[in-house]
Amino acid sequence: MAKSKNILSADYFIKGILKGDISILSRAITLVESTKEEHQSIAEKIIDGVIKKSGKSFRLGITGVPGVGKSTFIESFGMHLVNNGHKLAVLTIDPSSQKSKGSILGDKTRMEKLSVHPDVYIRPSPNSGSLGGVARKTYESILLCEAAGFDFIIIETVGVGQSEITVSQMTDFFLLLMLAGAGDELQGIKRGIMEMADGIVITKADGNNVQKAKNARTEYAHAIHLFPPTESGWIPKVTTCSSINNEGVKEVGDIVEEYKRLSIGTKYFQKKRVKQQKEWLHQSIAAYMLDSFYNSKSIQTELKKIESSLSTSSNNPHKLAAKLVKKWKK
Amino acid sequence: MAKSKNILSADYFIKGILKGDISILSRAITLVESTKEEHQSIAEKIIDGVIKKSGKSFRLGITGVPGVGKSTFIESFGMHLVNNGHKLAVLTIDPSSQKSKGSILGDKTRMEKLSVHPDVYIRPSPNSGSLGGVARKTYESILLCEAAGFDFIIIETVGVGQSEITVSQMTDFFLLLMLAGAGDELQGIKRGIMEMADGIVITKADGNNVQKAKNARTEYAHAIHLFPPTESGWIPKVTTCSSINNEGVKEVGDIVEEYKRLSIGTKYFQKKRVKQQKEWLHQSIAAYMLDSFYNSKSIQTELKKIESSLSTSSNNPHKLAAKLVKKWKK
Repeated sequence: MAKSKNILSADYFIKGILKGDISILSRAITLVESTKEEHQSIAEKIIDGVIKKSGKSFRLGITGVPGVGKSTFIESFGMHLVNNGHKLAVLTIDPSSQKSKGSILGDKTRMEKLSVHPDVYIRPSPNSGSLGGVARKTYESILLCEAAGFDFIIIETVGVGQSEITVSQMTDFFLLLMLAGAGDELQGIKRGIMEMADGIVITKADGNNVQKAKNARTEYAHAIHLFPPTESGWIPKVTTCSSINNEGVKEVGDIVEEYKRLSIGTKYFQKKRVKQQKEWLHQSIAAYMLDSFYNSKSIQTELKKIESSLSTSSNNPHKLAAKLVKKWKK
Repeated sequence: MAKSKNILSADYFIKGILKGDISILSRAITLVESTKEEHQSIAEKIIDGVIKKSGKSFRLGITGVPGVGKSTFIESFGMHLVNNGHKLAVLTIDPSSQKSKGSILGDKTRMEKLSVHPDVYIRPSPNSGSLGGVARKTYESILLCEAAGFDFIIIETVGVGQSEITVSQMTDFFLLLMLAGAGDELQGIKRGIMEMADGIVITKADGNNVQKAKNARTEYAHAIHLFPPTESGWIPKVTTCSSINNEGVKEVGDIVEEYKRLSIGTKYFQKKRVKQQKEWLHQSIAAYMLDSFYNSKSIQTELKKIESSLSTSSNNPHKLAAKLVKKWKK
């Protein structure tokens, strides 16, 4: 990362990204992730310079509880993609990475073949900021990867709850990985998350697990038919997969291809992309506001004073916050 | 909820809350949860009027994956508390409730005895807004409940990731419920969440499960000793519990009591409360900014124009967001 003093020009980044230079792409993503004003202003210029070349990828969101085998699935599915001529970028959103660092390194080493493949770029989760901030950063990272020539983007997330909603909002297809026989409750799979899925893959369908996985597939396929029809008109598909035997991986690729054809045909694909832009607009508004507030020198001084006056007694931070924002706005 | 036209005076709410009127408390919490300007301004006054009477409770955060038995645990632990003279409020943070409504009603009916007890107040999660917004609303709801005389507050959350961090930041004691033998990975229990816990309860220690639960307790107690020492100096306790046989419930109460004594003695308790205020200040800043931005009539008009101009082509919402915020600030 260049020091702020001798920060490189937006032009340098734009040219590098459009040439597909991975090291320049990485540094541009670091700028996108920064909350510093000078980094943000150059990031804005970089996005401006490459945005016309972005958008030309398929964006796939993948979720599932820890232990479901996301990394091994991405390893085998990713190899399937690059063997079919795709250039693949894998980005991660991990809402718990703020506290428990290091999980990503683990993931990266688990994706042994992908992580050294010349047509693959793996980028861990930005590890600071609110989920909304992370969403904006990830969305802009997608655009930069696309401009650098990656035509298939995987966004991986873990968790139960809001991060899934966020990822489903920024992707074209949302894939849910599930274990057979682990109990829906334990997998934290609420109806809401199943309803967001465009596809469900029962993982680890190997050894003694094959029959259980098949049963689970039948069950979920049945459950999905009871859901209200999706906005896209697509009926979510359920399939089984063994990443270690490399079975069922191509089928997932076929499902994604079929969805792509259908949704582009019905123009739902384009409609969803516009929705993603809207989401990005609102995330950017929040991020821009907070960054410029906290970057203000006079606010920083004021905040220090207020923070040191806080005590267990009768302060009302809500009121202090309102005052401070009003002052900043003037 | 009163219509905005004939909204009641802050004074009415303040007096009602301080008298312990549950129906007035509920309506005040609804105001706290609202993003409307007129509701926010009265909420601010209500908090101002009751804040001196708040703070006098023990705030307990509870988490665990779906299926671990949170509701049944809270039912039996809550009954233990009220039988010991406490007045109990149970608040919920559910980051997935935006999409999958209805889980809360289920929870409430599962807390059969608590939900009809005169000394208990159960309030479901505010079902809109970002996690940060929900955090502010929940924190302010805690204050109102305390002012209404509730001296024990339980904040329940579900999920893996940020909502735990949020809840641990707003409580005095963070309790993690776990199932024996379900596999840590499957329970989504990352080291980070275990490190936040002040206590771990192995639930469903009944029937065939008793030995497994005991083994799990030994394992976790061992694991905890390998963690770096906590800031409070407290060594997190691990215990087993059967909510259906009502066994081990009193022990959880004893652990909480012991923690309270210790942390008040070392002044860590007060220190953490100041930290909570700081967190509240920052959440309030973000919430106040966004609310007043989106409540601005001219911004609303401008936003509509921008949103309808968005397309799959070469817009840069990041840039549009910056422009819009600058305009609003003027």
